[in-house]
Amino acid sequence: MSLIEDLQWRYAAKKMNGEVVPEEKVDYILEAARLAPSSSGLQPYRIFVITNKELLEKIKVVAFNQSQITDCSHLLVFASWDGYSHSRMGEVFKQTVAERGLPENKMDDYHNTLWNRYEPLGKEWHMNHAAKQAYIAFGLAIAAAAEQKVDATPMEGFENEKLDELLELDKQGLKSAVILPLGYRDEQGDWLLNLKKVRTEKDEFVTYIK
Amino acid sequence: MSLIEDLQWRYAAKKMNGEVVPEEKVDYILEAARLAPSSSGLQPYRIFVITNKELLEKIKVVAFNQSQITDCSHLLVFASWDGYSHSRMGEVFKQTVAERGLPENKMDDYHNTLWNRYEPLGKEWHMNHAAKQAYIAFGLAIAAAAEQKVDATPMEGFENEKLDELLELDKQGLKSAVILPLGYRDEQGDWLLNLKKVRTEKDEFVTYIK
Repeated sequence: MSLIEDLQWRYAAKKMNGEVVPEEKVDYILEAARLAPSSSGLQPYRIFVITNKELLEKIKVVAFNQSQITDCSHLLVFASWDGYSHSRMGEVFKQTVAERGLPENKMDDYHNTLWNRYEPLGKEWHMNHAAKQAYIAFGLAIAAAAEQKVDATPMEGFENEKLDELLELDKQGLKSAVILPLGYRDEQGDWLLNLKKVRTEKDEFVTYIK
Repeated sequence: MSLIEDLQWRYAAKKMNGEVVPEEKVDYILEAARLAPSSSGLQPYRIFVITNKELLEKIKVVAFNQSQITDCSHLLVFASWDGYSHSRMGEVFKQTVAERGLPENKMDDYHNTLWNRYEPLGKEWHMNHAAKQAYIAFGLAIAAAAEQKVDATPMEGFENEKLDELLELDKQGLKSAVILPLGYRDEQGDWLLNLKKVRTEKDEFVTYIK
């Protein structure tokens, strides 16, 4: 199936049946997210894969009791950096030049220029910028799940600060951005399954400037 | 090829060769973006497809003179809503219930609850939230381009306000979020092509909580 067919097949499952997604499919979805492009290649986000039942019950409470949190097989939490710093960016560029076999100082000018641009923009901008990058990876994880015929429900409906506390994200310099339960649709019990997928018409969605 | 193979094939082409991407491939990429999920299904973003040479020259100037802007075949500009409002959200829900054959007032409670949650968060939050949704569609466009063996360079390096002016986005209640030149890599001239793709190692990228 093509990506378009996969995207037509997928929907945001509102009820999952508890069936377990094989680890190789979860790995595949994580790998798609890991391969996502990000601004300057910083990948300012991480993914938590939660299968611990007790923790999922607690997360459900801070996610408006939505059933997918506990009916899913694996809950992916996308968490983005809580800010940029010269040293945090430097770690990434250090790895980049090492893996590419380039001189250690090869990216120093780029690094400094980028930091001089980011620093004055402030913490709030940093957090939003890092979270936006996470959304690209999130999009690719959704595409990968659809390709693997795994249901994945994109969810923003949770209390970010409470989830950050549950996962102790502040200690890791992270903030929860968005979550993605993986599992299988409950074909009998999901009210959304048979409703038409509605999207903005192409004529309104796209403007050509020729 | 699988999505993972497509993502391994792709990279952010720094130099394109000017070859034209067939319209059906451009349509395919746009359709992937159009099918992207978004928070509450609002799709608070639009895409501009620019092939006008004069305009591309002007955009290049506000994009730090990066050559892909004029060497690409089509430039996609992802522009997100400059804010949410009760009526703007209402237009989407009106279409949703109409297309699903549901009673006109079926989503009124959801609509009001959502607006009551969004309104106090303020314009800055609205803009960031809408832009984040655009990044999901952006991710899917990148995946679709890779599947079609079309090069696509994710770019944030441009002066947003100046691009907004060039496209008169304020009149449409939009702000530029991110841009994606589509085209074909210049295999001889691109310094990035043969450098290793570097990503955070899986052990660092993913944390399992079992």
